Formats: sequence, C-alpha cells, structure tokens
Amino acid sequence: MFLLYEDENGLSLKTILVVADGMADRPIKELGLKTPLEAAVKPSLDHIAKNAVSGILDPIAPGIPPGSDTATLALLGYDPSEVYSGRGALEAEGSGVEVLPGDVAFRCNFATVNDSLVVLDRRAGRIVNEDAAKLATALGKIRSPPFLKIKFQFKNTVQHRAILVIRGPKLSSAVSDSDPETAGKKVLEIKPLDSSVEAKRTAQIVNMLLHSFHEVLSRHAVNEMRTRKNLPVANMILCRGAGNIPRIPTLQEKYEIKPACVAAVSLIKGVSKVAGMDLISVKGATGTVQTDYLAKAKAAVQSLKKHDFVLLHVKASDVASHDGKVKLKIEIIEKIDKMLGYILSNTDANSTIIAVTADHTTSSVTRNHEGDPVPIMIMGPGVRCDDVVDFGERTCAKGGLNRIRGLDLMPTLMGLMGKTKKFGA
Amino acid sequence: MFLLYEDENGLSLKTILVVADGMADRPIKELGLKTPLEAAVKPSLDHIAKNAVSGILDPIAPGIPPGSDTATLALLGYDPSEVYSGRGALEAEGSGVEVLPGDVAFRCNFATVNDSLVVLDRRAGRIVNEDAAKLATALGKIRSPPFLKIKFQFKNTVQHRAILVIRGPKLSSAVSDSDPETAGKKVLEIKPLDSSVEAKRTAQIVNMLLHSFHEVLSRHAVNEMRTRKNLPVANMILCRGAGNIPRIPTLQEKYEIKPACVAAVSLIKGVSKVAGMDLISVKGATGTVQTDYLAKAKAAVQSLKKHDFVLLHVKASDVASHDGKVKLKIEIIEKIDKMLGYILSNTDANSTIIAVTADHTTSSVTRNHEGDPVPIMIMGPGVRCDDVVDFGERTCAKGGLNRIRGLDLMPTLMGLMGKTKKFGA
Repeated sequence: MFLLYEDENGLSLKTILVVADGMADRPIKELGLKTPLEAAVKPSLDHIAKNAVSGILDPIAPGIPPGSDTATLALLGYDPSEVYSGRGALEAEGSGVEVLPGDVAFRCNFATVNDSLVVLDRRAGRIVNEDAAKLATALGKIRSPPFLKIKFQFKNTVQHRAILVIRGPKLSSAVSDSDPETAGKKVLEIKPLDSSVEAKRTAQIVNMLLHSFHEVLSRHAVNEMRTRKNLPVANMILCRGAGNIPRIPTLQEKYEIKPACVAAVSLIKGVSKVAGMDLISVKGATGTVQTDYLAKAKAAVQSLKKHDFVLLHVKASDVASHDGKVKLKIEIIEKIDKMLGYILSNTDANSTIIAVTADHTTSSVTRNHEGDPVPIMIMGPGVRCDDVVDFGERTCAKGGLNRIRGLDLMPTLMGLMGKTKKFGA
Repeated sequence: MFLLYEDENGLSLKTILVVADGMADRPIKELGLKTPLEAAVKPSLDHIAKNAVSGILDPIAPGIPPGSDTATLALLGYDPSEVYSGRGALEAEGSGVEVLPGDVAFRCNFATVNDSLVVLDRRAGRIVNEDAAKLATALGKIRSPPFLKIKFQFKNTVQHRAILVIRGPKLSSAVSDSDPETAGKKVLEIKPLDSSVEAKRTAQIVNMLLHSFHEVLSRHAVNEMRTRKNLPVANMILCRGAGNIPRIPTLQEKYEIKPACVAAVSLIKGVSKVAGMDLISVKGATGTVQTDYLAKAKAAVQSLKKHDFVLLHVKASDVASHDGKVKLKIEIIEKIDKMLGYILSNTDANSTIIAVTADHTTSSVTRNHEGDPVPIMIMGPGVRCDDVVDFGERTCAKGGLNRIRGLDLMPTLMGLMGKTKKFGA
C-alpha cells in the first residue's frame, strides 16, 4: 500500500534523502577498474537512476576530503566553514548529552597508560559498555574546585568511547588534544591554541580534570577486577576534538518543513539534532555493517507520515571502505539497494522525492576519505529526468545536474518541494 | 627506463602539470570550424585523454579573459582576486630582480619618442639585447635625490623589455602607467590611483626618475650610434603594471610538497618563484616558437627525481595565436604532443599523475585572450577515467570532471596525491 500525503492544501511533497557514508570510491584494480558501486548488482538504485536527474557533487569543494560531520552539515545546507568547530559537540548532542552555547565538548576514549603516562592501548581493550558505565559514574562524582565555577558531564557511549562536556564562564574550544593518536606515545598536555584568557583557562581546567580522572580510575574496583582477569585497565581518559555547539537556524526555520533523521551514529544524530530534526530511534540500527537495513527503511517510510523530510543515513559502507574490504563494501551496497527497493515499494511516486548520495568518497585502497566528488541522483515529481540509467560515480558525471556542491543539495531538493523562497520579484 | 619514486613510506605519487599557454581556441572557418587543437595530429595527448578524467576549466570565471599571470596563479591554487597586484612584481621576480615586500615594480619598454614626447616606436625597433644592456647600465648609475630615501633597480630582460623596481619608505602600487599603449600618442604622466600620500609620492618619484632616464638616454653613445645606423633610438622608458610582490603561503606550506617549475617566460617564473617553486633552467628554452620542447620535457622528467610536483609551461602556443598564425599554432601543438610523448615514455604510470591544460583561450581570430573555458585532463593512479578519447575543447566538455574553476585544479591534483587535509572528522 502506498502512503499518500495530504495536508489542508491538498497533496504535499515529501523527501527521503538517503546518504550512504563513504559509498563513493575510486576505480579498483581487482574489480577491473570498476568502483564497488559500479561493480554491485543494484536494480533499485538503477531504477531510481533511470527516473532521476543525476550528477556529481563535491561535498565541500573539489579535492577536499570531508569528514562525515562537515559533509553532513553541507548536505543539510549549512556551510561548515562558517558553523563547524570540532566534532566533540556534535557527537555529544547525538549521544543525548545536552550541549548549550558556550559549553566545550570533547570526544573521549577510555585508555590504558603505564606509570609514565605512556599510552599502551588507546581503547583499553575495547572495554565493554558495563565496565565503562561504572567508571563513568565514578568520574561523574568528582567535584571540581568551586572557585573554577565549572560543571562537567562525562558519559560513556559505545565501548571505549565517551563524551566530556564542560560548562561555565570563560571557556573556549581553542585547545589541543590530550590524545597522542598512537599507542607508545605519552599522553599530551592540553594546550591553548590561541592567546585568549579563555583558551588558557580551559586548557588548565581540562588538564586538572583529566588528572583527577586518572586518580579515580587507577584506584577503581572495576580496574582491580580487570587486572585480575588480565584485561587492560581503563586508567586514563584521552580527549580530542574540542568544540562548541554550532548555533544554526533549524531546517524548520529555513524551509518551513518538519524534518527527521534515521541514523545510528552519534555524530550524524548530533548534526541532525542541531539542525532541528527529530531523531527516530530504530531497533537494530547499529552503525555497523550488521545494521538492520530494512528496519531503517521502514522507520524512514513510517516517519514520512509525520515529517516532510527524512534523512536516512547508513554508516556501513564507510566502515567497509576504511577496512579495505572491497567485497564487503559491494555486499553492503547491495543491501542498501534492497533498502531502496523497500522505499520504492512503500512510497508514492507522485508525492515522494527520493534522493541518493554519499557524504564523501572513501577509497578502499587508501582507506581514507578522499576529495573526489560523489554521485547524486534525485527522483520525483517535476524532476528533469536525464538519460543516465545506472547509478555510479562515472555514469552520474554525465547527468543533468552536472557538478554541484554539497551546499547546493538542500536548495535543489527544497526547490522541488516548493519550499525555497523567491529572490527578487 | 622508468623512474620510480620511493620515499621512506614506500611509493609516493608525483605530478607533472603541463600548461600550454593560450593553446585553447575557438572554431576557425579555414579549419572547417575546428579549433587548432582539434585539427592537430596529437597521438600522445589523445593517449592521455583515453586514460584520463577530463573536463573544461574556467581559469578565473566564465567569460573572463585571464592574463597568463592571473591564470597561472589560479592554476597553482592562489585566488588572483586576493593576491594579484599587477604584473610588474611577478615579472621582476622571474627576471631575477629581487622584489621585497613594500617594493613597487613596473614592466618597462625601451621606446622611441620625438621632442614632444610623442611615442614613435613602443619597442625602439625591438632593440637588440646588447644595446639595451649598455643603456640599462647607464640608467642604473643615476642617483636619486637623497631626501627621497629611495633606491631603484633597472634591468633589461629580452630586447626592448625591462624591469624597474623602486624601494623605500611610503611607496604604493596604486599608480597609473606612463605607457600610452599605442604609437602616435604622447607619453603619459604617471598619476596616483587613490588619494593616499603614498600613491602621490610614488607617482612623483617615478615621473622624476623617467625624466632623468630620458635625459641620460638621449645623450648616450649607443643612441648616437643607432642614429648613424638609421635605427630607432631608445630614448625613453615606458612603464606599466605597477605591483607589489604578493605574500602567499608557498606550495610547500600549503601541501607539504617539493615543487619545481620549468618555464622560460619571466612572468611564469615569477609566479612560480612566489609560490615557492624551484626554477629549473633549461638550455634552449626560449619562450618563443623555436623553443627546445624536448629539452623542457627532459628537464621536467629529471626534476621529478627531487620534486613532487613539476609545472611545465610552454609559451609558444600563445605567441602563434597572438600573431593569428593558425598553421603555426597547429605545428606547435604537434610539438607539444611530442613533448608529452617523451614524458609518457619516461615516467612510471603507476606513480605519476600527468595533467594537461591551457592557462587560457587565445583566439587566433581576435588574436586576444578570451574568456572561454580551456580543456583539462588528468591521468594517473586513482583517477576515474572517463570515455573521452581525444583531447579538445569540445570533447573534454563531455568528460568526468565536468566544468571546474582554475582554483579547483590544485586541490584536485593534491587530492589524488593524498596531500589535501581532511576538513572535519
């Protein structure tokens, strides 16, 4: 049964934007110089391509490798060069930790260090959630000296990952990381990155806090137990990516739409929350390659009932690329294709715009985000369908959209929905 | 023998960027509405096209005719609207005349004027280098009044061309030209172009200096000799293009590469020097249509041993276009093709990126730089090769790069080399 969307003004258009993280790739020798997307069997994606206008898209700008955070901001119509200040705050928001204007947020790891503070394991043996939760509770009870007038929240998220948010007067996100990024190196002292009083004060506070964390963790019963079990102790917190929450107009404010997001990854949820989107929880959506693709598709279609615009984000394609697993990446793309199949079968083509793209190219060879453009296609009422018949990095380069920027996508979609405002008379 | 490039991290990629000055053109009636590039026999360029991703490129922006200086700045990743302040300083740098921050540099011509200072010949009969050098030495001995606190350098370059650099307190490049641009007009008084004290002072100083130059030149033995030989006397210096040296981050600073430039033309050498590139001298490279193409190709390939990125610039294609010599332009393009053949045979396809473009369109009909886009192609590891099989203004318009700007080229090339930094996380 198709869903039909009618409001008091009659039929209204709805948009599903599917973003497959790192799905775009470069030609790969063992695939006969095809990309994984070109090599995959993808009837639903190709069906959309046949009925869509397609093109290539530079998430940020040609040649610039985007992060998933900056790319998603751009795809949602926010210029990351204006609003982005580090990943910590966006990830905190997505983890359900409240971040207010002025707060400084960090991404953290539970880690193992020796007595000289040399990092032995940046992930404390990928500590299980239960242990991390107990340690996080203990850290949350630490009191900072009253004269500093600061409060902090510390929350474990998945395994070794955690969030630290600091609130108080005169704070700045212009501070360096304590995470040395590789094992075998000493924990770094956090330093101010500019000459402001705020940066200096923030660096001092976080260094003090991390010292206290180390003290509490080193003596905690969970770590005594881990030592007995021969597991790496989680006796240090490593911090990186200090950031503030960007103050941006919501998508409601910009386009008078009711937007939602189906995503499992905290970072994407954070970006979406900041953009004023409702976060839809999906059982079985894990942000891993084993995620429940169909459950996500169902949730996206369902949420179209109460929303105009749904971002459906799938992380798995990026995970496979970073691991250099070409075959797995193809399998994931084929699962994403089935996900699109469900969406096609359960939405009304007369009232639904379906757009598919990637947030960036991730090369399965370099295993890195790359600055190459990504394919994009848009199907729906009013679209100037072109003669591209399959969805790929190179086929889409011949499409009717030609080459656009990430920042162009939302106005294009909102234009098709009749939600962009006329400039001039 | 192929060159293989290994650094401590294993194989590293190298890039040769070939820029054929003014190679792009418009359809020409006598070529059956082909362009010279489309009419030329060019197996090596077409071989690259077959294995490349191609596109069209607006050096500055659609419709804007670039100078070779602004175009080269843009192709090297510098926004000329931010960093460009006149051609004089760049040409001076390329001629080996030191230009420091605050100096004002002019491009000059030795010219012939009558007693009323009306220009009879803007190039003094294209005076030979030997005569120009003697006159320049005489001018260099002029002393400016001590109270002005300025020093100047005057250097002849090729034939009638010369460079004047002024150094001292309170100087400005916001001054007009003394060159009336056409014979039959009177030498212009240099005027301040804004209301600053510095511009007024600079205009006065240069007017005084040019007056002294005229005095010295008029009475010089070289000119007496030229009169006897019935050659136009070089009794005046015409100035134009006042500029300061742009302060820009070098390519090393921007991309952590070691760049070099193979070029004969002072202006291109100047741009490259300012960008921190090593200038490779090539015997037989003249910047004229008789240049030694193969020697330049050899020098470029050789310099890849110690550099990551080599700009190989050929002036000849532009010279033929300005003279409206279509047949000559085709011959030059065919020589450039042989140059590319050498490069293809002497570099390793697994570790070398080869990019070919023009800095601007020069119409053999209008004989001017035009604002039409230029073709661009990029061959190398990781490139999403498209189905364009020959290199031309119109074939490349169907390529996988679509249409990019000059400023996009370096990030695109550096992205393929893994040298662009990720924005975001």
